[in-house]
Amino acid sequence: MPEALTIGVLGGGQLGRMLALAAAPLGLKVHVYCPEADSPAFEVASAHTIAAYEDEDALRHFAALVDVVTYEFENVPARTAEVLGALKPVRPGAAALAMTQDRLVEKSFIRDLGIGVPRFARVDDADELEAALATIGRPAVLKTRRFGYDGKGQVIIREGDDASAAFAALKGVPCILEAFVPFTAEVSIVAARGVDGAFAAYDLTYNVHRHHILHTSTVPSGFGVDVEAQAVGMARRIAAALEYIGVFAIEFFVLADGGLLVNEMAPRVHNSGHWTRAACTVSQFEQHMRAVAGFTLGDPRRHSDAVMTNLIGDDVEQFTALLAEPQASIELYGKREARAGRKMGHVTRITPRKA
Amino acid sequence: MPEALTIGVLGGGQLGRMLALAAAPLGLKVHVYCPEADSPAFEVASAHTIAAYEDEDALRHFAALVDVVTYEFENVPARTAEVLGALKPVRPGAAALAMTQDRLVEKSFIRDLGIGVPRFARVDDADELEAALATIGRPAVLKTRRFGYDGKGQVIIREGDDASAAFAALKGVPCILEAFVPFTAEVSIVAARGVDGAFAAYDLTYNVHRHHILHTSTVPSGFGVDVEAQAVGMARRIAAALEYIGVFAIEFFVLADGGLLVNEMAPRVHNSGHWTRAACTVSQFEQHMRAVAGFTLGDPRRHSDAVMTNLIGDDVEQFTALLAEPQASIELYGKREARAGRKMGHVTRITPRKA
Repeated sequence: MPEALTIGVLGGGQLGRMLALAAAPLGLKVHVYCPEADSPAFEVASAHTIAAYEDEDALRHFAALVDVVTYEFENVPARTAEVLGALKPVRPGAAALAMTQDRLVEKSFIRDLGIGVPRFARVDDADELEAALATIGRPAVLKTRRFGYDGKGQVIIREGDDASAAFAALKGVPCILEAFVPFTAEVSIVAARGVDGAFAAYDLTYNVHRHHILHTSTVPSGFGVDVEAQAVGMARRIAAALEYIGVFAIEFFVLADGGLLVNEMAPRVHNSGHWTRAACTVSQFEQHMRAVAGFTLGDPRRHSDAVMTNLIGDDVEQFTALLAEPQASIELYGKREARAGRKMGHVTRITPRKA
Repeated sequence: MPEALTIGVLGGGQLGRMLALAAAPLGLKVHVYCPEADSPAFEVASAHTIAAYEDEDALRHFAALVDVVTYEFENVPARTAEVLGALKPVRPGAAALAMTQDRLVEKSFIRDLGIGVPRFARVDDADELEAALATIGRPAVLKTRRFGYDGKGQVIIREGDDASAAFAALKGVPCILEAFVPFTAEVSIVAARGVDGAFAAYDLTYNVHRHHILHTSTVPSGFGVDVEAQAVGMARRIAAALEYIGVFAIEFFVLADGGLLVNEMAPRVHNSGHWTRAACTVSQFEQHMRAVAGFTLGDPRRHSDAVMTNLIGDDVEQFTALLAEPQASIELYGKREARAGRKMGHVTRITPRKA
C-alpha cells in the first residue's frame, strides 16, 4: 500500500485548491492552513485550520497532524517556516523562501550562478537611488525588494521623471533598481526537482501579460530548441543550487538576440503552468505533490498543444459560453465575488500536438 | 457569475470521490451523503453527512442544503429517492433507478424499444425455472433480479446441472434466466444526456473482465464505425426513452456477426469510462456534474488513445512503479485496506491518437 501521507498546505487560494485536487488521486490527504474563512481550497481538502500565520500554537498543532508542509505563496513569514520546519519537513525549504522573498537576494543569487539577470542595484534611500540611476541608466524599474506581485510595488523611472517621487510612491521601503530590459517576449519554465535530485521541466511557455497580470500562456512557445535548452539549463542549475524540492517557475525575458535574462523565480506552482492540467498526463499540481511527498517525479511531456487564458474579474461571465466550446478545459476557483483584477479562473484550449 | 450550486451526492465511494474532484473546477460544491464514516469521497467534498439512507430526517436536512441530488450507485432505495425527490431534483430520475435496479424490468424496457437483449424469462420459483430452461435452453445464466454486481448474484446452468440447486444458491429470491450469449467481446458506451435533451457519447470502449471484475478498458475499441454507430444509437434511444439526465453506461455483448445485444445499463459514471479523465478534456465525472447541474454538456472527444487498467486488491502495490512510468495517469481511491477483489484505484496509459 502507498503511504497514507497528509500534506499540509499553507494558503487556501486557488493554488492550494488545485494542489488539493491533484493530491487525492495519489492517495494523499491535504490539510490546508489559512487565516481566511471560506478559502477556496477548504472545499476540496480533507481538513483545514483557520488561524494566523503568526499563531505558533496553531502552527504546532497543524504540524502534528501532517507529514510534510508546503505552501502556495512565497511570502510565508520566516518565523512560520522556522516553527514548522522544526517539527516537519517544509518543502521547498528555507533557502527557496529566503531567496524568493527578496528581489535583491534573488537577483544576486542568480547572478552569482553565472546566469543572466537585468543589471540591478540596491536602493535603501534617496541618495542610493541617485547613485543607482547613474550606474544603471534610464529607463529603469524601481521595485520594492519584498511583497511585490502583478506589477504592484514597482514604478518605471524614465528620462526627466522625478526619482525621489518614485521612491516616495513606494513609501521609502528598501528597493532594488533594475535596468529596463528591451525584451521581445516573456517566457517561463515550470519545473520540478525531487527529493532524489531528479529534475523534470515542462515545455517552455510563452506568456503575454495585460495590465501586469498574466493573460495567456502558450505551448509550444514558438521559440527554438536553443532558447528552450538555455532556459531549462538555467532552471536546473538554480534548483540544484537551492537543493530545491517541489515545483517552481522561472520567468525570463527574451532578448532580440535570443538570449535570456531571468526576471524572477516563484517557489511554487505557477499561473504560467496551469495549462499542464489540460495538456499533460501529470499536471504541475500533481508534480508538486509528488515531489513534496517524496514520490518519483512524473513525465512532464505534453500530449497536446495548449493556450491558457486567465479569467480575470468579469471574464468569468464567459463561463456559459466556454462550457459549449469544444476542447476547452475550464477551471474556476470557487470565488464568489468577481472583483476587478481578481483571478477567478482560467480556461485552457487544447489542440492536437503538431510537433 | 456562474451559479454557486451545491450538488448532493448519495454514496461516498470512489465514484463519488471522482465526481467531487470534477465538480470543483466547475465552481460547484459537493455534499456527500453516505452511511459509512471515513468514506473516500468525504476527503474532497465541501460537506458530508454520515447517516443511513433510510433516515428521513437526515435526508430532509441534506435536501435543504443542496440544489440537486445525484448518486454514485443504482441501488438507492426507492423511498430515499422519493423523500429527496419531493424536495429537490434527483438526477438521473426515478425512471432510471426503477429500471436499472431490476434486471427483469431493465431487459423488458430495452427489448420493448426494439433493441436487442439476450433472450430472458422471469423466474420466481423452481417451477418457473424449469419452464424457463425449456424455453431458453442451456447453457443459461440465472441472475437475481436485484443487487447483483461484479458477477455476484449469478450462476451458469449448463447441460446436466441441477437447476434447483442453482436457484437455491441464489436463496430463492426473484430471478431472471438469460440465454448464455456466445459473445466475441464486451464493449460499452458511456454517454450523457443533458437537461436540454442534448446527447454526447464517449468513444466505444473495449472491455476485458477477469474473475467477473473489469480488468481493462481500451479506446479505440478496435471495432468499426458500424458497430460504434449501432451502440451509440441504442444508447441515445434508451436515454431519450428514460428522459435521462446525467452520465450512464451501456454494456454490450458483441456477436460474431458484429451485432450487439445490451447486457446492462448503469445509471451513473462507470468504471469503463474512467479512461476519460486521462484522455478527454471533459471526463465522464465532469460531464455528469455538468448534466445534473443543468449546464451545457462538454465535448466528449478524446485527445489520446488509452488503456485503463484497474488496480484490484494487491495490484495497488504497483503504485511506486507506476509513478515512474511515462504517460501513466494514476488514480487511487484513498482506501486504506487492500482487500482481495477490492477496487483500490486504476491507471490509464495514454498514447498519441492514431485516428
